[in-house]
This record gives sequence, structure tokens and C-alpha cells, in this order.
Amino acid sequence: MNKALAYSGTTVRHIAIGAERVDFDDALAVEEPLEIRIGFPDGKHKAVSITMRTPGHDAELAAGFLFTEGILTSPEQIKQIRHCGKATALSNTIRVDLNDNIDLDLKRLERNFYTTSSCGVCGKASIEAIATGVKKLESEIKIDADVIHSLPEKLREAQSVFEKTGGLHASALFTADGNLDIVREDVGRHNALDKVIGAKFMAAETPLSDTILLVSGRASFELVQKALMAGIPILAAVGAPSSLAVELADEYGMTLLGFVRDNRFNIYSGGQRL
Amino acid sequence: MNKALAYSGTTVRHIAIGAERVDFDDALAVEEPLEIRIGFPDGKHKAVSITMRTPGHDAELAAGFLFTEGILTSPEQIKQIRHCGKATALSNTIRVDLNDNIDLDLKRLERNFYTTSSCGVCGKASIEAIATGVKKLESEIKIDADVIHSLPEKLREAQSVFEKTGGLHASALFTADGNLDIVREDVGRHNALDKVIGAKFMAAETPLSDTILLVSGRASFELVQKALMAGIPILAAVGAPSSLAVELADEYGMTLLGFVRDNRFNIYSGGQRL
Repeated sequence: MNKALAYSGTTVRHIAIGAERVDFDDALAVEEPLEIRIGFPDGKHKAVSITMRTPGHDAELAAGFLFTEGILTSPEQIKQIRHCGKATALSNTIRVDLNDNIDLDLKRLERNFYTTSSCGVCGKASIEAIATGVKKLESEIKIDADVIHSLPEKLREAQSVFEKTGGLHASALFTADGNLDIVREDVGRHNALDKVIGAKFMAAETPLSDTILLVSGRASFELVQKALMAGIPILAAVGAPSSLAVELADEYGMTLLGFVRDNRFNIYSGGQRL
Repeated sequence: MNKALAYSGTTVRHIAIGAERVDFDDALAVEEPLEIRIGFPDGKHKAVSITMRTPGHDAELAAGFLFTEGILTSPEQIKQIRHCGKATALSNTIRVDLNDNIDLDLKRLERNFYTTSSCGVCGKASIEAIATGVKKLESEIKIDADVIHSLPEKLREAQSVFEKTGGLHASALFTADGNLDIVREDVGRHNALDKVIGAKFMAAETPLSDTILLVSGRASFELVQKALMAGIPILAAVGAPSSLAVELADEYGMTLLGFVRDNRFNIYSGGQRL
């Protein structure tokens, strides 16, 4: 990734017990807002989201976001994606121009409010009510435990910025036999995943039925939902999964692995693929 | 905290190189959606947010969210806060009923779209444009480096669920001499902070000018912004800060410390308080 975009230098004072106070040059993970706009064929546009992200791969992020949120369904719907204003990667607005007057369900972006207009999430929420647009996985992929054990080290080797700042999440796709396909980093773990999925969506490679996804942190409901939208059958997290992540993965046939590190891991759902 | 709400049991298969595959009972951090509604004196209500949170301290979360987002400014504006539907902590909807017809600026919740209607975040975003409602800190608090060194261990002792699941973020307020005041845990780090601030807001103890905030993970723009809204002068993070977190803290006079662990830490802004 472009290191100049991913981190910025700053002077920091380091304090430790039993040591001199020293000033040193540190690298910070860059966090900047990105406004994602949809541009319509008549020239109008609509802002649909602002996310705090690490600059770089913004087009992939925008495409991945719109795809995993269920707004776009095919890369052919996209005419072009371009930064607004000065058309450089330093711009904090990106515009996804559509080819045709597609009947977009933009209300999906406000779905939380719409799905709850009557009783909604009063009481225990049903998975179906909050996981709109997700379909049951049909992947027949089988994987070897040794492949899973090998993934964290491969991710570490591929990561550039995380090692330097300790401030970035990573998301990586592997083939079923453990070869790294693509890795993206971001201050937001959902952004890192949107960048990975967006790259594949734009290359018309979704659904990603034969892949393994490794994420550097915990597995939340949101990450499982995005992976399901992209048809990813196996999600491996270096950290812990949440209760709702496990419920969602189990309900839709995803293999969810947690604490994937130090040559061990836990299977939370979908163990038949191992 | 209420452990029954904070984690749920599940059966997990553990796989490690050179060991038998074993099934064991694991504890998962609970993640559930919470819809926050504002109830008006005429009986109507408006849903203003859904957040994925760990159940428990929902009223504090709702109050803290509305305060740190700049919607509410005084606890006296709140008539009552109650769960909707079955009025138990298992409900996933909470309603904040207002005392009077306060002129709320609900557009603040959509501020990202409104502040960018003209040029907005095209190009480098200005801190002022995205940090709406934040005021310069005036706190004269001075702290000792030894106090900072002592905080992580105190947080660990106070945390219940994090140790068990590895899946919860924690947020804790300390006095200037390092005594723990309040700690809250959540799958979302912003929720953990909203719970802490909400408890203090409802007790009419904001601004929190004489306190130190410790957060278990990284320091993002959003956490700095919420802490600034509550008038917290010192934010100490166990992890790394982002570039925008440092910029925001510096601009508004906050002391921002990162990598606060193992008897050391870095000062990113506001070093005059140490």
C-alpha cells in the first residue's frame, strides 16, 4: 500500500519508568473522513455515507461498501469511480457514477430505522430482521487445519503499516490451499474488509465461494454480514467473535473461526468444512 | 457488571497443532442491537440510532450517546429512560423521554451530510468541519507519570468480562491521583465510553474537568471527540492513536497518551499537564 497515505509522522515524547524522557519521530496510522457519493446519469448525486478511513484504495472501499450494503449488485452498474474536487488520492470525497438509472434501494442504508418501524428490535432481535439481504452459503469448500494455522504469519509478512504503527486493522483473502490473494489495511476493520471485497466485486469475482477471509481483530456481526454478502464461506479472526457473529454465521452456513494464532484456533460454526 | 447479560455460553471445538481436538464450553461477549428513541412530551417518538452493543447499562449508553452527539445538554431535559416492550434489560429498544418540548437539533445526527453540502470534505477536511460542538478544554489538572503507569493494572483488576472472552473493550474514569471511579465494558469501544460518560451526565457531574480516561484499545477520532464533549482533559489509550485523534486532541487542548502499558507511554499532545 501507499505508505505516504497510510501513516504520517509526528514527534512524540516517550516516558518509561527508570528511563530518560526522550522525544522521537513516530508514525501514526492516518485517519481521514471519506464521503461516498452516488452519481446518477442525470448529473445529480446523493451522499450516502461518511466513514473514517485510512486513505488509499478509496474506489475499492466505496464499491465494497455499496455492494456489502446491498445497494449495488453488479460491477456493470458502475460507470466510473472518481475522487471529487482535486482528483487525487488526497481528496476526501469519492463519487460512484452509475451507468443507468438503476432502481436503487437507498432506504437500505437507513434500514435500521425502517425494519423497526412497528415493533422491530423490541425484545430479542431476530437475526433475519437485522441481516437483510444475506443469503445462505452454498460453498462446498473443504480446508485443512494446517492451512488455517499458516495464515496469521502470511498476513504479518504482507502487512506493512500495522507493524509500524500498531494502529491498523488488516483484512486478507486466501485461496483454499492458503495462498494470499489480497490484503488491505485500515483504521476501521469494516473498511479494510470493504476494500478487499470491493476489489473483488469490481473484478467481477464475487461470490467468493472458494476463499478464506482472515481479519486481524475480533469478529463482529458487521464483519460476518459483509462476508456473507460477498459469499465468503470461511471467516477466520485473530481475535474473539461476538455472540451475534456466531449466531449469524451459524444461521447462514458460514465457518467461523476465532483466536486464530499461535498454531491454534477455535471453531464456532460450520465445522464440517474442516 | 451483570455477567448474564455480558456473555453467553457456547460449545466450541478447539484445534491446536500436536493436540487432540477437544470440545469445550466457551463464553462469548454478547452483541445485540440497541435502538435509541427520543420520546417527546406529546407521546410521539423518533428513532435516532441503532448501535450494536453489549446489553447492560443501556440507559447510560443512551444518555451518553445523546450527550456526546450534542443532542442533549443537561440531565434535567430527561424525564425518564425506559426499555420499550417488555421493560427488562433484555429489551433491545430504549426510549429517552424528554421533560419539555426542547428544541433539539436532530440534524446533528446527520451532520456528516449537512456539513458537506457545498464543498465539505472535498480535499483535506478541516478539523472544525467534522468536530462540531466541541469546545476548547480549560482544565488546569496536573498529573504524575506514576499515576498513568498505574492505570492499566487497575483497569484489569476491575474488568470482569474482558479477561474471560477477550471480546470486550473497556473504558474507565480515574481521579487525578489515580483512583478508579467507574468502568464500563462493551463490544463497541464508543459504547463503553458512552456508558461511562452517560452515567456521569445523568449524575450532573459533567464537565469531567478533573478526570483521566483510560480506554482499552486504540484512540480514534470518535473517542477523542466524545471525551472532549464531556470535558475530559486526559485520554490515555492502551493502544495507538490515529492521526486525526492526535490532531483533534492537539487542537482542543487535550492531553492524549498512547501505548499506556508495561510501565511506559507516549505523549502525543498536551504534555504540559505531566
